[in-house]
Amino acid sequence: MFRADKNLAFMLRYENVAWYENEKVKILDRRVYPNEIRYEICNNHQDVSKALKDMVTQSGGPYIAVNMGVVLAVNEAKNFSDDEYIDYVDKAVDTLCHSRPTTVENMKKAVFNCHKKALEMVSDRKNAVEEVLKVAIDEANKKYLRYEKVAKYLYKKIPKNGTIMTQCFGETVVGMLMRLCNENNNRIKVFSAETRPYFQGSRLTASVIQDMGIDVTVITDNMPGYVMKKKGVDLFTSAVDAITMDGHVVNKIGTFQIALCANYWNIPYFATGIPNKEHPTIETIKIEERDGDFVTQAMGIKTAMEGVKGYYPSFDITPPKLVSGIVTDKGIYSPYNLEDYFEE
Amino acid sequence: MFRADKNLAFMLRYENVAWYENEKVKILDRRVYPNEIRYEICNNHQDVSKALKDMVTQSGGPYIAVNMGVVLAVNEAKNFSDDEYIDYVDKAVDTLCHSRPTTVENMKKAVFNCHKKALEMVSDRKNAVEEVLKVAIDEANKKYLRYEKVAKYLYKKIPKNGTIMTQCFGETVVGMLMRLCNENNNRIKVFSAETRPYFQGSRLTASVIQDMGIDVTVITDNMPGYVMKKKGVDLFTSAVDAITMDGHVVNKIGTFQIALCANYWNIPYFATGIPNKEHPTIETIKIEERDGDFVTQAMGIKTAMEGVKGYYPSFDITPPKLVSGIVTDKGIYSPYNLEDYFEE
Repeated sequence: MFRADKNLAFMLRYENVAWYENEKVKILDRRVYPNEIRYEICNNHQDVSKALKDMVTQSGGPYIAVNMGVVLAVNEAKNFSDDEYIDYVDKAVDTLCHSRPTTVENMKKAVFNCHKKALEMVSDRKNAVEEVLKVAIDEANKKYLRYEKVAKYLYKKIPKNGTIMTQCFGETVVGMLMRLCNENNNRIKVFSAETRPYFQGSRLTASVIQDMGIDVTVITDNMPGYVMKKKGVDLFTSAVDAITMDGHVVNKIGTFQIALCANYWNIPYFATGIPNKEHPTIETIKIEERDGDFVTQAMGIKTAMEGVKGYYPSFDITPPKLVSGIVTDKGIYSPYNLEDYFEE
Repeated sequence: MFRADKNLAFMLRYENVAWYENEKVKILDRRVYPNEIRYEICNNHQDVSKALKDMVTQSGGPYIAVNMGVVLAVNEAKNFSDDEYIDYVDKAVDTLCHSRPTTVENMKKAVFNCHKKALEMVSDRKNAVEEVLKVAIDEANKKYLRYEKVAKYLYKKIPKNGTIMTQCFGETVVGMLMRLCNENNNRIKVFSAETRPYFQGSRLTASVIQDMGIDVTVITDNMPGYVMKKKGVDLFTSAVDAITMDGHVVNKIGTFQIALCANYWNIPYFATGIPNKEHPTIETIKIEERDGDFVTQAMGIKTAMEGVKGYYPSFDITPPKLVSGIVTDKGIYSPYNLEDYFEE
């Protein structure tokens, strides 16, 4: 079977995202990776839902895990009557999609084809698990191939043996970009900002890049402005949490500062992702704020005196004037002209 | 005896910086503060020198500790012959000044008056410890009073009940500024960037401000750009490691990014410190780089996969166009006109 995760880093291979095997689903625990390689073993779809709720995996991980959860539910219901089977699968999908309140709608989209196939297989229960698993893998492939297209457009902007900077964890796009570098024997250098308070840049991004044999250096979040000049960075890139149709990039806190520094040093900033039609302007975005106490600790160790407050806005806003291009699966668009993405 | 550290935070009071008492010098261990309140107990001046070498105290701390070390040496030599006493004190001063290779010249200046007094007391050994200790305290007072002058000029720029942002640890200036706020019943709010990789902003600055009863909030180093707009910050301020005569501020890594963000949002940036005549231009400055491994850990816990490199430039450069004013003990100067500081 075709696998779009070929030659990607350890943590991007499906077996190490979320995987159905021997009537269980195992999910790599991204909360402790890479200090510890630990899998959450889920014996039923409720366990999968709980793992999602507990943030065992994050970013793109839950969208693979949710389909593996459907495979597990199909296996759980294999000996039920037809009516019971249909009812059980429907309820399991509902449970899985509602694991996290903020991603219910995206989860419903992600699970659609697996859910459909599971219901179709009511009349062929012997092959149901196998067939639904095929769809689950196919869905993961589609997701990965879409981001491979994005990475191909971004790759064209990276000078041969150039130096790029990133922050947080662009996940599949990062993996695909590194795979393209390897395929083209392009020995780039990457600087990854650690991305406090959760260290996605040092824990996840740097691990993926090193795993794929590419030169990667971690810096702290107060360094990008100095380092991009000192080390001759050619390009700054990040994934996005949302792109509003008026060209604002909403992404992990810190993106704005780095984009501003890039602008100061005349270095382009390319954001990768798909414009969000449901957000016509930046005014429709509410920046999520999380528990401030997470800011006064690092890797579980307290960093401030008892009683000192922390403040934790999760995302920030980069205005279109600081964005050189939005890199999509259809090409690179000006942040001032995103309507074009939806034309033709 | 007059004490310039009155009503300052715990860690700025002389007893908690470095202090001679009962034939010992105790030095607050700033490496573990505030998670632990631990003093290094020095039984002789060699212990003081070793504590300085081991960075038990930092920033302004060593300049107080070095004089307490002289007091200790005087006590050690109290029963020596006159010639032995003079020789012992001279050698002790030399040892203390050479504790760290990069601060030898500044240490020599800091220790000058205590050394002089110690030599004068050769003929009055009974009162030598007491008299040299007086000079040591007087030197600390002079240092504190000078920074109180700086703080007074900076204070005038802070709106009543306003909000300021800072990073790293401006030490005495921060303490003096907070004391002025308290004396004037000015209920300001302070945002302190944590300042990776060593967390001086969260461990030290936030502790001092909270100790003095002022509202302080810690943010991570990727947040200043967003937070200064969101929370209506009126002013960004930092201490400096050097100010070149052509108006460049060399300070703890991260200063440049915050100054750039402040400029973007039309918020003034005031740097506190004395221009460095020995650095006519920014070209005379070499930015120190430290062990990159310190960047891939936080509070002693590894943050990246084994083998991932870190890069650790300690300081950065903020150009004069991003500096609103250099706040000195003689007033506020334009970064483009620092010669005036040395006139009259």
